[in-house]
Amino acid sequence: MGRLKCTINYDGSGFFGFQFQPTKRTVQGELEKVLKQIHKGDRVRLQASGRTDAGVHAKGQVIHFDSPYDIPELGWKRAMNTLLPEDIYIDKVEGVTDAFHARYSAMEKEYHYFVWNAEEPDVFKRNYAYYFPYRLDIDKIQEACRYLEGTHDFTTFSSAKATTKGSKIRTIYQATCKQSGAEMEFIFRGSGFLYNMVRIMVSVLLDIGQGRRNPADIKSLLDGKNRQLAGKTIAPQGLYLWQVKYDK
Amino acid sequence: MGRLKCTINYDGSGFFGFQFQPTKRTVQGELEKVLKQIHKGDRVRLQASGRTDAGVHAKGQVIHFDSPYDIPELGWKRAMNTLLPEDIYIDKVEGVTDAFHARYSAMEKEYHYFVWNAEEPDVFKRNYAYYFPYRLDIDKIQEACRYLEGTHDFTTFSSAKATTKGSKIRTIYQATCKQSGAEMEFIFRGSGFLYNMVRIMVSVLLDIGQGRRNPADIKSLLDGKNRQLAGKTIAPQGLYLWQVKYDK
Repeated sequence: MGRLKCTINYDGSGFFGFQFQPTKRTVQGELEKVLKQIHKGDRVRLQASGRTDAGVHAKGQVIHFDSPYDIPELGWKRAMNTLLPEDIYIDKVEGVTDAFHARYSAMEKEYHYFVWNAEEPDVFKRNYAYYFPYRLDIDKIQEACRYLEGTHDFTTFSSAKATTKGSKIRTIYQATCKQSGAEMEFIFRGSGFLYNMVRIMVSVLLDIGQGRRNPADIKSLLDGKNRQLAGKTIAPQGLYLWQVKYDK
Repeated sequence: MGRLKCTINYDGSGFFGFQFQPTKRTVQGELEKVLKQIHKGDRVRLQASGRTDAGVHAKGQVIHFDSPYDIPELGWKRAMNTLLPEDIYIDKVEGVTDAFHARYSAMEKEYHYFVWNAEEPDVFKRNYAYYFPYRLDIDKIQEACRYLEGTHDFTTFSSAKATTKGSKIRTIYQATCKQSGAEMEFIFRGSGFLYNMVRIMVSVLLDIGQGRRNPADIKSLLDGKNRQLAGKTIAPQGLYLWQVKYDK
């Protein structure tokens, strides 16, 4: 009995995003279906740390829900994984107090974005990385990452469609890029991220790596506070919600 | 004009195997559809080095076909890749003489089989490796691999359903297993492989790694020449047709 926190992996390829939609396969829909089964037909609402779009993956999405049942943590994990489809897996279930909220208690989020930077595409990566065949200067990308770190108004780097009325100021603790063969991995850790923010940042970083913009342009882009200044939103399949951190 | 040899990758997850079936999505079906488009509606038959089952992948399947068109190799590659779906990719097109046959000219085939040997499954590997959570003794597996290498009658290790009437004698040049973290990669190179042979061999090797059989049992299994002696055929999604070699 009480509140349960679950850490979840999913392959976003087969879902129309996280958020429940009555006629479409969504991660929330699958999770709530299983919770309903476990609760003998009673609907259980869950709260997530945030939504992810169609095609976006999670290595550490966090949700919470309340249950009247007294089941040990490992029992919850086993019961849910037995009932869930193969593209969602519950890594961990922890009992938490009612003060915990998957979204409002989150202190830090980490996203990774994978780019397959090779001349030839790889059929095995088509759903898991963004194929980008042009030569990239990783030093310039790293230099640009330095400009993204810190506390800024990220209006330029967030979807104009965003309905959030609140502040667009966020803090990025770390923005970096690792290269391993043809695979490039962008890592972003921050206090929070606006809608599409990671995908717009990576899009601009690839422009910079290609020499179409300069690293220092990030500064003027941030100052401009205008979504039109940044490029397109890059494809969803390279994006992974990697982990969400909470206060102990 | 003449015969074209193509080296092809495909993600087997979305196909009912390689071989054409009138009402199902197959690799051959997609390839022939594209060849028909390029040939303005004329049907073009292709020959492959061999079939792969539903769910089985290819990093280096080889096919050939004949065309009346005089297109440069790179032109063929581009035209086909432009028309093909994202889960098939033509790596290479080479003009060959009429003496070349994708199946009959093959000198050596190489298959890899991936096992995800961790306590927890990985949603991103579910279609690309076989999840096996039990502890394995890799030294015993390596010892057993030595017994598979060489020229043997592989009746025990081939599907009883196989319609091939010919000899079940094959030569395995190399059988080995590499471990990298939780990922185990079995590698088999041989003169040819019988139907389901790799999947039955890996199944027995996992039995041996788990201590349910001894490495030297391979010898008596081979001597027995009876499919009933080996275990089940392991799941298809760990299997990759890695490369096919031809005489120069």
